[in-house]
Amino acid sequence: MMADEPLDVVGIGNAIVDVLAHADDDFLTRHRLTKGAMTLIDAERAEQLYSVMGPGVECSGGSAGNTMAGIASLGGRGAYIGKVRDDQLGQVFRHDIRAAGVAFDTPPASSGPPTARCLILITPDAQRTMNTYLGACVDLGPEDIDPMVIGGAQVTYLEGYLWDPPRAKEAFRKAAALAHAAGRKVALSLSDPFCVDRHRREFRDLVKSHVDILFANEAEILSLYQVDDIDHAVAAVRTECELTALTRSGKGSLVVQAATVEPVAAEPIARVLDTTGAGDLYASGFLYGYTRRLPAAQCGRLGSIAAAEVISHFGARPATPLKDLLARTPGNARAASGAPM
Amino acid sequence: MMADEPLDVVGIGNAIVDVLAHADDDFLTRHRLTKGAMTLIDAERAEQLYSVMGPGVECSGGSAGNTMAGIASLGGRGAYIGKVRDDQLGQVFRHDIRAAGVAFDTPPASSGPPTARCLILITPDAQRTMNTYLGACVDLGPEDIDPMVIGGAQVTYLEGYLWDPPRAKEAFRKAAALAHAAGRKVALSLSDPFCVDRHRREFRDLVKSHVDILFANEAEILSLYQVDDIDHAVAAVRTECELTALTRSGKGSLVVQAATVEPVAAEPIARVLDTTGAGDLYASGFLYGYTRRLPAAQCGRLGSIAAAEVISHFGARPATPLKDLLARTPGNARAASGAPM
Repeated sequence: MMADEPLDVVGIGNAIVDVLAHADDDFLTRHRLTKGAMTLIDAERAEQLYSVMGPGVECSGGSAGNTMAGIASLGGRGAYIGKVRDDQLGQVFRHDIRAAGVAFDTPPASSGPPTARCLILITPDAQRTMNTYLGACVDLGPEDIDPMVIGGAQVTYLEGYLWDPPRAKEAFRKAAALAHAAGRKVALSLSDPFCVDRHRREFRDLVKSHVDILFANEAEILSLYQVDDIDHAVAAVRTECELTALTRSGKGSLVVQAATVEPVAAEPIARVLDTTGAGDLYASGFLYGYTRRLPAAQCGRLGSIAAAEVISHFGARPATPLKDLLARTPGNARAASGAPM
Repeated sequence: MMADEPLDVVGIGNAIVDVLAHADDDFLTRHRLTKGAMTLIDAERAEQLYSVMGPGVECSGGSAGNTMAGIASLGGRGAYIGKVRDDQLGQVFRHDIRAAGVAFDTPPASSGPPTARCLILITPDAQRTMNTYLGACVDLGPEDIDPMVIGGAQVTYLEGYLWDPPRAKEAFRKAAALAHAAGRKVALSLSDPFCVDRHRREFRDLVKSHVDILFANEAEILSLYQVDDIDHAVAAVRTECELTALTRSGKGSLVVQAATVEPVAAEPIARVLDTTGAGDLYASGFLYGYTRRLPAAQCGRLGSIAAAEVISHFGARPATPLKDLLARTPGNARAASGAPM
């Protein structure tokens, strides 16, 4: 697809190749890894950790990249902005996101650190523990934000992880300003509770003043407001943000607006194999529904369906065309056909 | 492990990173791909084919590399010889085979073509269609064969694909000569019927004069002897080769010696997902048994078990420690414990 066609969503994020390997809990303990979290690591630590990991499988990842692949898999029109290096892993990332049907035209860095990678350890309980070497992501800057792309997309979707590399937040702010100037919506994922810890003050300001649609899991929203129960977090966020989707793993999600809090069930699946990408794909389903003007709870339901697919196999992007999955789900014929309500 | 410990098997092959993607039969037709075969492609065709393939998953492959990973997974001691470039995919290959527990010390090429890759299309019937760009494999030569490693291994295992890059056959011949000089055994896999077509005269000579243990599937052995039924092929090979294992997909295998032909059943599995690596892993199980001096039919049975594991998931190397699998299979306690009979 061409980036100058009208878009449903443009995603901006850290462009990362995932390296997935199985590990047991002892391995996490021995190498001082925080289970379930995303930890930033430098080149040296990445090399050291890789050298002790088991055989890996490489596949394209990155939170917003996964979300955009999911939106395309649902039949939505999407573009992605993120920075790779002109190396083999950068070619892999570029190939995969384009092959998924997402426009991707950010020029690769021709010098500096290599394409980012995330060393992901999957424990027998299907939890993923992520260790990210940001590599070329540190080169993403406001010059990579194309006003035509942002202005042409119904929603600009940003991952909180963008706050980690030094110049990406400028890209993030530029994109949000351009989206609002064009009468578009801005969505943010809080990404990770430790990421919220690192950037809480700025994230609070973003949510209050620049974000229309917020995605967070329980740990992230509790960390954002420094409260210890979900009701307090819901009470806070509904006064600040137009629309919030709070994901709760097996308990489903809560879709929060000023006047309503709607619980959405998780989609039942036979066996959870790898939770990598669950939140990213929830956002795919939700935003696909949102850009088709479906009611908020129905957006949450599409999120549940997309998330269920990705956790039932190894890897963070859909293995089945989500469009076909929707068509087979009772009550979703309208969403699958892509007709706005 | 150290390469100077006594080894069960040393494998020599084309060191390849697999790029796996799903495709339908129409895709194969449209791009003139021969289903189920391994086709050699040049850099330009590799780029063109990659550009039209769906999103991929990268994992280390190569026929003998897969076999060695399987032997290590069974608890055997193995080493691998093969040529990668000093690039990112070469690092991936090196990491994965070492992480699998296989010694790998072949120095990478510091110039010339990049690390080899095999673009593998998996069709809904679980068949794999392979397109190999040999890349750095063309740099493997006799200088990469370490007499200490060959002399220290019970079996030197060679893949027929080595006949494709120009200088690898010299490495192959050197290794076979060294093995026999040290009183060791030489095993060969015929790899692919088209590979047999390309090199039939030389393969016939090898089987007759230099190979002790032969692995082939039906199409390959029929091609080798240019006969059209398996009984004629069996009659020919039993006079030429000490021990032959003929794999027959769902029909199991035939273990052929001068005096006996023993049928071995396939291991039943719930669902075949991806046949990539089936023959490679059969060889793992067989050689693991062989180096533990198990009876020939029992070697075939271990081959069936290892092959069944690899075809029940995506990818060509074991996803479950095969050692644990053996321990859970009735009648294999002795093999699993590693005690010679």
